[in-house]
Amino acid sequence: MSSGLFESSDSVRTAQPLRQVQSARLASPFRLESGGVLAEVIVAYETYGKLNAKGDNAILICHAISGDSHVARHDETDEPGWWDIMVGPGRPVDTDRYFVICPNLLGGCRGTTGPSSFNPASGKPYGSDFPVITIGDMVEVQRKLLDQLEIGPLVAVIGGSVGGHQAMTWATRYPDRVEGTVILASSPRLTSQALAFDVVGRNAIRSDPHFHGGQYYDRPPGPGTGLAMARMIGHITYLSPQAMDQKFEADRLQPREVAMAFEKTFSVGSYLGHQGIKFVERFDANSYIALSLAMDLFDLGGTSAQLAASLRPARCRWLVLSFSSDWLFPPAQSREIINALIRNHAPASYCDIHSHCGHDAFLLPDDFSRYGEMVRAFIGNLAAPPARADGEPDEPPGPTSIFYEQRLDYDRIAGLIPPGASVLDLGCGSGQLLVRLKQTGRRVTGIEFSEVKVLGALKNNLEVIQADVNAGLRAFADRQFDCVVLSHTLPAVREVKHVIAEMLRVGTLAIVSFRNLAFHKFRRRLAEEGRSPVAEDKWYETPDIRFLSITDFEDFCHDQGYSIWRCIALDTETGSEVTGEVNREADLAIFVLGDEGMNLMQDAVRL
Amino acid sequence: MSSGLFESSDSVRTAQPLRQVQSARLASPFRLESGGVLAEVIVAYETYGKLNAKGDNAILICHAISGDSHVARHDETDEPGWWDIMVGPGRPVDTDRYFVICPNLLGGCRGTTGPSSFNPASGKPYGSDFPVITIGDMVEVQRKLLDQLEIGPLVAVIGGSVGGHQAMTWATRYPDRVEGTVILASSPRLTSQALAFDVVGRNAIRSDPHFHGGQYYDRPPGPGTGLAMARMIGHITYLSPQAMDQKFEADRLQPREVAMAFEKTFSVGSYLGHQGIKFVERFDANSYIALSLAMDLFDLGGTSAQLAASLRPARCRWLVLSFSSDWLFPPAQSREIINALIRNHAPASYCDIHSHCGHDAFLLPDDFSRYGEMVRAFIGNLAAPPARADGEPDEPPGPTSIFYEQRLDYDRIAGLIPPGASVLDLGCGSGQLLVRLKQTGRRVTGIEFSEVKVLGALKNNLEVIQADVNAGLRAFADRQFDCVVLSHTLPAVREVKHVIAEMLRVGTLAIVSFRNLAFHKFRRRLAEEGRSPVAEDKWYETPDIRFLSITDFEDFCHDQGYSIWRCIALDTETGSEVTGEVNREADLAIFVLGDEGMNLMQDAVRL
Repeated sequence: MSSGLFESSDSVRTAQPLRQVQSARLASPFRLESGGVLAEVIVAYETYGKLNAKGDNAILICHAISGDSHVARHDETDEPGWWDIMVGPGRPVDTDRYFVICPNLLGGCRGTTGPSSFNPASGKPYGSDFPVITIGDMVEVQRKLLDQLEIGPLVAVIGGSVGGHQAMTWATRYPDRVEGTVILASSPRLTSQALAFDVVGRNAIRSDPHFHGGQYYDRPPGPGTGLAMARMIGHITYLSPQAMDQKFEADRLQPREVAMAFEKTFSVGSYLGHQGIKFVERFDANSYIALSLAMDLFDLGGTSAQLAASLRPARCRWLVLSFSSDWLFPPAQSREIINALIRNHAPASYCDIHSHCGHDAFLLPDDFSRYGEMVRAFIGNLAAPPARADGEPDEPPGPTSIFYEQRLDYDRIAGLIPPGASVLDLGCGSGQLLVRLKQTGRRVTGIEFSEVKVLGALKNNLEVIQADVNAGLRAFADRQFDCVVLSHTLPAVREVKHVIAEMLRVGTLAIVSFRNLAFHKFRRRLAEEGRSPVAEDKWYETPDIRFLSITDFEDFCHDQGYSIWRCIALDTETGSEVTGEVNREADLAIFVLGDEGMNLMQDAVRL
Repeated sequence: MSSGLFESSDSVRTAQPLRQVQSARLASPFRLESGGVLAEVIVAYETYGKLNAKGDNAILICHAISGDSHVARHDETDEPGWWDIMVGPGRPVDTDRYFVICPNLLGGCRGTTGPSSFNPASGKPYGSDFPVITIGDMVEVQRKLLDQLEIGPLVAVIGGSVGGHQAMTWATRYPDRVEGTVILASSPRLTSQALAFDVVGRNAIRSDPHFHGGQYYDRPPGPGTGLAMARMIGHITYLSPQAMDQKFEADRLQPREVAMAFEKTFSVGSYLGHQGIKFVERFDANSYIALSLAMDLFDLGGTSAQLAASLRPARCRWLVLSFSSDWLFPPAQSREIINALIRNHAPASYCDIHSHCGHDAFLLPDDFSRYGEMVRAFIGNLAAPPARADGEPDEPPGPTSIFYEQRLDYDRIAGLIPPGASVLDLGCGSGQLLVRLKQTGRRVTGIEFSEVKVLGALKNNLEVIQADVNAGLRAFADRQFDCVVLSHTLPAVREVKHVIAEMLRVGTLAIVSFRNLAFHKFRRRLAEEGRSPVAEDKWYETPDIRFLSITDFEDFCHDQGYSIWRCIALDTETGSEVTGEVNREADLAIFVLGDEGMNLMQDAVRL
C-alpha cells in the first residue's frame, strides 16, 4: 500500500514560486555548531514595510516548523500569509511603522538551504548527508542575513513554538541587538511527551521503505507515507481535544471525501489523512527530520537554575504568552521561562491566554483580540521615546489632570516608599498604583490574575505577570524587592498566612492595606441591625472572603511574630488620618511590616 | 529498514502457555452484530476462588485492549497477572469471597478466537477476512461462556478503559444479571483525539509493506514495524505528561541500550522503541486492528439524552471512577456517564481520583490506596444481606449506641423530611446525616468534593457523587428530589445565589442550615472587642468565606423571591429551640424554603 500512496507526487521539494521572496547568499563556508560545514548557504526571506534611515525600526519574525518566509500577504492580491492577523498595516506588528523581515529556516525546504539542496561535494542533493543543525545555527544564519542587509538593532524578535526557541536564542546571544522579545506558545525545551511524538514521527519517515536512508531524491516516489504519518501525529498535537471534538463530533462517522489509501472510517481519520497528503505536497521528509531534531535538541536547561543561567545574558524586555489548552508546549513551560526571567531580575511580562485552540492558538483568530492586543501594547511601548537617560522621573500628573485619580490611600502608600525603590504589587489590576509609583521613579512590577487587567497593565507600559497570589511568589528571590504591596487585595486572599510570609521573604518591607471591619458603622450594623457588616456588597455576592479588623490584623502579626513598623489609619470619608481609637474610627488601614531587614529601609521611610 | 526490524520474530501470535488457562467452545455458529458469522468460537478464560452452591458469588472482570485472561496470579509461583493489586485473597476483589472469571476478548490473540485463528472456510488463518466485531459481540461471547459454566447473577462486572465499555454493555443488555457495575477510566465513546491516535496506529500497521492486506501469517516477517509504531503511539497516550517527565527527564539524552533500528537519540525514544518491539512479540497486528476498531466504534451516544437512553435499561448500582491526569479517557467523559445515570435516577457513585499516572492509573499501585478501597467498599456493600423486602426501615441506633452522634440539628432536619422522601445532601461529608436519614427509610444521595469523604460515604453504603456544588447541579432534573439539604455548607459556598436557585429547581423543598453571625456572643465580639466574629477558627484560616445572620438570609430570600416555610432557630449550647428574638438568641438556624411545589409537601412536613 505505501508504495502506491503518492506515486504521482514529486517528493523533492523546493521553494514554491511565492511572489516577493528574496534570497541572499551568505559568506561561505558556513560553520555549524556540530562542527560540520556547509559550503554554501542561501537564505530565502520576505520583508514588509520600510527600514528607516537609522535602520532601527526592524522586527524579526521567526517561523515554526512547517512555516516559511511568507508571514503575511504583501498586498490584497497576494496569497494569504501564515500570520496575516498579526503582521500588516494597522496590525499589532504594524508594517506602516516597522520594517518586518521573516527568513525561511536553515534546514527547511522553502528556499533556504536544507537537505534537498544541491551538495557541491557529491554533486547531488544532500539527503541524509545534510549535517545535524541546531536552533543556534538557524539564528546564526538570520544574524548574518541581517548584517548583510545592514539592519541595526531590532525593536523586537517575535516567535511562536520553535520560533520562540529562536527568539530566546537571539535575546541571549545578541543582547545588544534586541530591545524586546515576544515568545508565544514556547518552552525552554520539549517535554518528554512532545519529544516522544517527534520520535515516532521520525521513525515513521525512516521506516518508510521508500526513504532509502534519506537518499530518495532520485528514487521516486520517496517516503510520502511516512511523512504523512508524521504530519498526522503532529497535527493531533497542534489541536486541543476540545477543538477536535468541535470539528469532528457532529459528523463522526461521515468521513470527508478524500482519495487516499489511509483509513477513512471516521471523519477525523479522513481529515488527518488529507492533511498528511497535503503536507507531502509542500514539504520534504529530510527537512522534517532536520527541523524537528533541531527543535528536540534545543535545551535551555532542565532545572530552574540552569534555565536562569541560559537566559542571563539577555538585556531585553520580555513578553511571554502561553495558551491554556496548549498541551504540546503547555503553559507550565512558559511559566518556567518567566520564573527564570524573574530570577534574573529581567523586565518580563506574562499571560496565559484562556483558549480552546491548543498549540495552534497563536496562529488563529479565535483569541486574537486578547493576545494580539498584548503584543501590540508591548511592542508599542518598546518603540516609545526612550526613558530619560538621567533617571529623573517624569512629573506625576497633578490633581487637576484628568488622569489623576484622587486616592488618599495610594498617596499614603506612595509616601511610604522611597524614590528609586523596587516595588512588587500583588493584585495590581491595570496598574493604577504602579503607574503612580513609576512616574515618581520607583522600579515597579505587578502580579495580576485577570487577563483583561494584564492587558491594561501592558498598555500602561508596566511589567506585569499573570499569577494567582495564593500560589505563592516562589520564583522571586529573598529580598528581591525593597517593597511588596498588597493593596485592597487581602480580603480576597485565601492563603493569608502564606501570602504575607512570602511578601516578607521577597520584600524588605511589606505594605498591606484593607478595610477595617471594626469601623464604627460596621460594628453598629451587626450589633444593632444583626446584619453582616460586609460594606457595599451583599454577603452572598462579595468577592471578599476574609473579614478582619485592625485588631484582628495586629493579633495575626503578633501570632506570626511580625514586627509592625507603622499603621496608618484613615477615615476615607473625611479624608483624614485617625489618631485616637483607630479600630473604631478608621475605615481603612495601611500596615507596614518588616523583619530584620527593616533597618535598611527605616530611615528612608518617611515616618 | 522496516523489513529488517523484526526478521527473527514470528508475527503469528497465539496464547502464550499460561498456566491454568481454560478454554470453552461455544455453540456454533456464532452470529455477529455486523451480520457476519463465525463458524467456531473458542474462549480462553481463567477463574479464581470458588463458585458457591447457588452460583451467585461471581464477579466478571473485562480486560482492556492489550490484556488477557491472566488478571491475577493463581498462587505465589505463578506469573504476575495484570491486576494483581485488585484481584486475589484479601484484595478488593477478594477471591476468598468471590468467584472471579476473566475471559480473553473475542478478536484477541491470547487464546480466544481472533484474526490469527484458523478459518474453516479458507483452511488458513482469517487475517483480514476476520469480520468486524463490536463490544456487543465480545459481551455476547462472555454471556454464552457464563451460561455454559452455569454462572448465575453477577455480583459485579468490573472493567477499566475498553473493559468499562464491556461492563456498561453488560449492565444495559443483561440488567437482571448484574447487581453492581464498576467502570474505571472509561467513556461513553472515544474523543475525537483518542480516535485520531487509533486511526494513525492502524494506518501505521496497514502501510507496513509486510502487512500484505492482512494476509501475512504465511509471509514472514509480518507488519512488526507498523504494529510497534501503533504501540508507541498508544503507549504515549496511556501515560500522563507528568509521568513521562518523571521517567525520562533525568537521563533525557541517555537512551537505554536496546538493539533496534528505531531512533535512539533520546531516552524516551529508546523506551518507546523497546515497548513497541516487546509488544510485537506477544500481540498480533490484525488483532490490534480488530480490537481497536471495536473500541472506536463503541458509542453510547453523542448527546446527554442519547447517553441516558443507552443506559436506561440498566438496573444495577454503579461505581464510576476516573483519574485526574487521564487525557485518553478524560474525567469529563466519566462525568458524562454519571450525569446520564443521574438523569436516569440510577443509584450511582462517582469519584475522580487525583492521580499523576494518566490512563494507566487504574492498573498501577500509585493511587491504589484510594481507588482500590472505593472498589472494595462498593463491592462489599453489594454482597451485603439484601435490604428488607417489606420496605420497613431498620431501627435507627438509639442515643445509647456508640454509633449515634448526638446532633440536635440533624434530628431537627430529619424531622422535617417525611418517610420515604428522596433526599440530596450537598456537601454530605462521609454521610453522617444521610446514614441517619437512610436508616429511617429515606432514599438518599450525597454530593461531596473531598476524595477521602467520598470513600467514607461509600463505606457507609451510600450513593455519593464527587462534585463541586458551586459548579451546579445541572445533571439533576427539575424536582428530581423531594428535598435538597445544605447543612453547614453554606459558609463555604462561593456561588450562593446559583446554588440555592439550583436546590429549589432540583428539590421540592430546600433545607439550609448555618451558624448565625448575629448570635449575641458574636455581636459582642465585634461591638466590644472589635474583632471579626468568625467563631472557632481564626479569620485568616477558616474555610468559611460567607458570613451571614438569620436576618441576612431572610433578606436574601426576600431579594430572590423565595418563600420561607419554616425557620427553626436553635441554641445548640443549651440544646433548645429559640422562639423569641431569634437573630440574637440562636446560634444555629435551619431554614426550609419552597416554591409553588411546596403544597405537595406541606402536610407531610411535621410543622
